[in-house]
Amino acid sequence: MSTAEPILLTPGPLTTSPRTRQAMMIDWGSWDNRFNQLTASLCEQLLAIINGTATHHCVPLQGSGTFAVEAAIGTLVPRDGKILVLINGAYGKRLAKICEVLGRSFSTFETAEDEPTTAADVDRLLRADHDITHVALIHCETSTGILNPLPEIAQVVAQHGKRLIIDAMSSFGALPVDAQQVPFDALIAASGKCLEGVPGMGFVFARKESLASAAGNSHSLAMDLQDQHAYMAKTGQWRFTPPTHVVAALHEALLQYNEEGGLPARHERYAANCQALMEEMGKLGLRSFLPAAIQAPIIATFHAPKDPRYAFKEFYERVKAKGYILYPGKLTQVETFRVGCIGHVNPAQMREAVAAIAEVLREMEVLDI
Amino acid sequence: MSTAEPILLTPGPLTTSPRTRQAMMIDWGSWDNRFNQLTASLCEQLLAIINGTATHHCVPLQGSGTFAVEAAIGTLVPRDGKILVLINGAYGKRLAKICEVLGRSFSTFETAEDEPTTAADVDRLLRADHDITHVALIHCETSTGILNPLPEIAQVVAQHGKRLIIDAMSSFGALPVDAQQVPFDALIAASGKCLEGVPGMGFVFARKESLASAAGNSHSLAMDLQDQHAYMAKTGQWRFTPPTHVVAALHEALLQYNEEGGLPARHERYAANCQALMEEMGKLGLRSFLPAAIQAPIIATFHAPKDPRYAFKEFYERVKAKGYILYPGKLTQVETFRVGCIGHVNPAQMREAVAAIAEVLREMEVLDI
Repeated sequence: MSTAEPILLTPGPLTTSPRTRQAMMIDWGSWDNRFNQLTASLCEQLLAIINGTATHHCVPLQGSGTFAVEAAIGTLVPRDGKILVLINGAYGKRLAKICEVLGRSFSTFETAEDEPTTAADVDRLLRADHDITHVALIHCETSTGILNPLPEIAQVVAQHGKRLIIDAMSSFGALPVDAQQVPFDALIAASGKCLEGVPGMGFVFARKESLASAAGNSHSLAMDLQDQHAYMAKTGQWRFTPPTHVVAALHEALLQYNEEGGLPARHERYAANCQALMEEMGKLGLRSFLPAAIQAPIIATFHAPKDPRYAFKEFYERVKAKGYILYPGKLTQVETFRVGCIGHVNPAQMREAVAAIAEVLREMEVLDI
Repeated sequence: MSTAEPILLTPGPLTTSPRTRQAMMIDWGSWDNRFNQLTASLCEQLLAIINGTATHHCVPLQGSGTFAVEAAIGTLVPRDGKILVLINGAYGKRLAKICEVLGRSFSTFETAEDEPTTAADVDRLLRADHDITHVALIHCETSTGILNPLPEIAQVVAQHGKRLIIDAMSSFGALPVDAQQVPFDALIAASGKCLEGVPGMGFVFARKESLASAAGNSHSLAMDLQDQHAYMAKTGQWRFTPPTHVVAALHEALLQYNEEGGLPARHERYAANCQALMEEMGKLGLRSFLPAAIQAPIIATFHAPKDPRYAFKEFYERVKAKGYILYPGKLTQVETFRVGCIGHVNPAQMREAVAAIAEVLREMEVLDI
């Protein structure tokens, strides 16, 4: 049934394996011990990916990744804290919006969408404003696919004695982060990204001491990660009804992640996907928005063809009819479209996808690329 | 595969149909038009159940039902509003806790767990405190299964010119509510209850004018129902990644709901389940906590056997080994356990479940019921 469905070349939800989806064919009791074991095993496996067992708790949360980002800010930043938000795309802007709605004091530092924030920027900003208690960074900005230099920025933040909150939504599981090398208070990701689960839950790796002292910070009952963790530690259960099928799918996806060879293998496959994509698109004359050095192998942004016969909507529908779902651009200044490199796909399928794109451009008589 | 799994006799997550689970075998693109149509069709079908199309919007929300309750309070009660919370169980208490965390002014009125709130109570309370702007009621309190007299209370609230927020989590879809007869500002439910979807999303029926004037009320970005609705009305899409598989499962569950005969048929089956359960449990001497008049056909609470050889944990595990998952009691004063009447189950299966309970009591030599 699923083979007839288009392949998702998007930043998530993405194409999952039949085995992962098959795990959703069971109805789990959320109070049952077998389900508690599933949750515990999930958290253990997630912590292992960042080598965080000794220093961090994994706190799962119902909802999309944005819910987990909001929960991390609300729980871990004290009400009198101040957040420096580093922005080079839509997700950085969303993080600033969260700070605003939550009434947390914050300032922003914005670079162009093709320009990573640097550690020197952060050093300068922290010297200039001593009120800042937390720095918030998007690891890989899904707007373009740009990679920000996390290890360098983390070192600077730690040197200043400040705390780092990382939105690693679209990088976690594919790009290495070692919690013992890269100091952070929170790293946030979700089920339906590079782990190749289905969407419906996020999770936050929270430094144990920071979480322990976070009682009463949260603006929300449902998004209080300290309360969520304390209840789970005591009972083994989620505080409120968990998305049981989503949890089971993520657990099954993690088993496959480890069988495939864990993070190195996942990174290698995505890098090969990205390389195949770039090579084949290059042959068509389609230009990548980002230079290779700052391109994460997660999602790639391409300049739209200049030809007036090109229109994204028609292009999208025709490529979809050939079996591939692309993603629209998210830049305001430049017309672009995006192609995801993540999910249960391989380089051969990426090449087939570009072959479909080539055919569509011919059908549409788009000549001026 | 699923037939070997135990049947969930719980208040949700509950047993779903194979067809509903099968709908999760497809990966949907959250940006794709076909998925937007799925969401639109879902909201239309949900509104039809309460006859609310003319007066209310259906706003779906990622997360568990509690997320949707918090979102409704945060979005629809202005920051200077005051909420009267009517309590006769754990979910009423949780609603008061949400008001407290959100910093909304509130007062509570609590009756015993086997005593419904009355319209006369509400009338008296509203006369005594003119600061109250909103009344919050749990329709069917899952702690015990008690049914509160919603239509009568709704009339009194409207007569006072106040606004009603209804947590209908465990009743929606099985007990009738007509939005044109029962005035309310918000009615909240979730995917994994009487509609027999899987857990992972809630939804709020919000009165159109109330939602339109709610911009800026919310304490949260992710849980801002006004923003969620406005974005969906404009784009057809969810603001943040939707739980695509959960949405698809709920859509499929709603098709089956309508094929079965809609609310009257669903109510009839659950009432028959509840009756079969009560009859068979009565034959064993197991006594219902609630009198029949205030017992909703959703979940039933039973007094635990008095025999010292009874222990819930062993009882639960033995019944589970025979294929049925029960639910623990949630009362502090009295030892009880609960049995759900909802989900993809029928009266014959309820009788088989009680036969399994009888066998287990014999095995445990529990004689003094």
